[in-house]
Amino acid sequence: MSAESAETTALIADAVRYRFGDEAPAVDPATPGLDAVLRLLNRRSQRRYDTGRAVDPALIRVLCAAALSAPSKSDLQQRDIVVLEDAAQRRRVTSLLNDEWIDTAPCFLVFCGNNRRQRQFHEWHGHEFANDHLDPFFNAAVDAAIVLGTFVAAAEAVGLGCCPISVIRNHAATVSDILALPPHVFPVAGMTLGWPSEPGAVSLRLPLSLTVHRDRFDETAIRERVDAYDHRRAAAQPFRRQRYEADYGRVDFYGWSEDKARQYGRPERADFGEFVRAKGFNLR
Amino acid sequence: MSAESAETTALIADAVRYRFGDEAPAVDPATPGLDAVLRLLNRRSQRRYDTGRAVDPALIRVLCAAALSAPSKSDLQQRDIVVLEDAAQRRRVTSLLNDEWIDTAPCFLVFCGNNRRQRQFHEWHGHEFANDHLDPFFNAAVDAAIVLGTFVAAAEAVGLGCCPISVIRNHAATVSDILALPPHVFPVAGMTLGWPSEPGAVSLRLPLSLTVHRDRFDETAIRERVDAYDHRRAAAQPFRRQRYEADYGRVDFYGWSEDKARQYGRPERADFGEFVRAKGFNLR
Repeated sequence: MSAESAETTALIADAVRYRFGDEAPAVDPATPGLDAVLRLLNRRSQRRYDTGRAVDPALIRVLCAAALSAPSKSDLQQRDIVVLEDAAQRRRVTSLLNDEWIDTAPCFLVFCGNNRRQRQFHEWHGHEFANDHLDPFFNAAVDAAIVLGTFVAAAEAVGLGCCPISVIRNHAATVSDILALPPHVFPVAGMTLGWPSEPGAVSLRLPLSLTVHRDRFDETAIRERVDAYDHRRAAAQPFRRQRYEADYGRVDFYGWSEDKARQYGRPERADFGEFVRAKGFNLR
Repeated sequence: MSAESAETTALIADAVRYRFGDEAPAVDPATPGLDAVLRLLNRRSQRRYDTGRAVDPALIRVLCAAALSAPSKSDLQQRDIVVLEDAAQRRRVTSLLNDEWIDTAPCFLVFCGNNRRQRQFHEWHGHEFANDHLDPFFNAAVDAAIVLGTFVAAAEAVGLGCCPISVIRNHAATVSDILALPPHVFPVAGMTLGWPSEPGAVSLRLPLSLTVHRDRFDETAIRERVDAYDHRRAAAQPFRRQRYEADYGRVDFYGWSEDKARQYGRPERADFGEFVRAKGFNLR
């Protein structure tokens, strides 16, 4: 065992303990590639960029290629990426979001589900498309999300920072019009990208004991475990404000689960289903 | 520029050319982490494993942790992983799929969307859940898929092979029962995992010129480009048989788009929407 690999396994244990609050069982330090696993464990969403440093379009293209090498449901490749290069076009999208850090991020991409191509194959080859139900929409959304996750891994491997922007779906129809998305093509999420100007923070996560199940779903003591997570997280990364305080009042202890219950106590994207059906999908 | 990094950029260009048929613009060889990008570009689904070599459960747990470090919609963490450790329990799931290579793969995991926890927070904190529409289902599915994509990146980084198994959704209700998934928790995909017994093949992909759009969706000359891809792919990785030949007959040139149009000329998972609604989701 090299000193370097022993150090990596120790750093992996530290990273798991910090993010999840769990003890990680010891990994064989002779395992190759643990540095890449450590990098994934230390990933962080990045909202602060060096706005004076451009990202080489050649690098973005290669990162897109790496992302599009990810697995795809039944080899159907039902996902595309739109890279916003023109500044005016980009602002048309980002100005909807009212967030200056998004407006000024060096790059903005949109990951889309695309079930249109599949339907085109049926037209071209004269075979009826016999799947006008939920599944094609689901598969295209999942394909796009797998590519998004892989893009994040690729971008962070070269030192870029990024942050997925799902709030573009609050304006799904408008974004779709701006990007000229045809029927059966829909935005899943945007993404900012740039060279980070500061390290960013590792977001704490629910314990693995709650989210990784052995053989069958198990939510033993879930309330106590979420409560412990709420407190661990509040100690390390306290919320700066209590959401919708005018509606919900002020509580002594404000944790993650309270914040999320407040967030979805208001409707968000209640019109998304209507948008998806208008794109031609049958969600039955 | 080191000789090593110049070699990596040349290998990246080769990998893009082989998989996508596109010329990759030259990436600055001084970019750090290009070896990780090259590994993602060379990824391959793996169906042949060294069945005599177990995968250390400690490593699987750390890979799950790396995957669960991926971004999550609004920090909601609406995804879980079920690791099938018990052989009998595992066979209950894999025997549904009638594929010996899946049955004998060293490990099997199931990636699930989980919107149940979010709803539990609302109960605990006394705030109404005001989002009984498509969006929560979509977000949980996308969260699970991002984690799946990140798991693949982590597993392949240490030399493991894996293959997502979406066909478990052909038996969604049965799998859900076996795994004791409660309301608002649903399987997105399974995954086989093990040490590869052979290199596996890089699956060719649609050209980047068709799947990476600049500023707006563009399907110029799509039929010609898909046709070129069909031919490029048939030359490198010909289909061994023509699907559903009894129904569709035999054609002289059998390409990928013909194969996919035949596949979805029959209904697949037409009952998935019913399963999802029975799980308590409103898809409006």
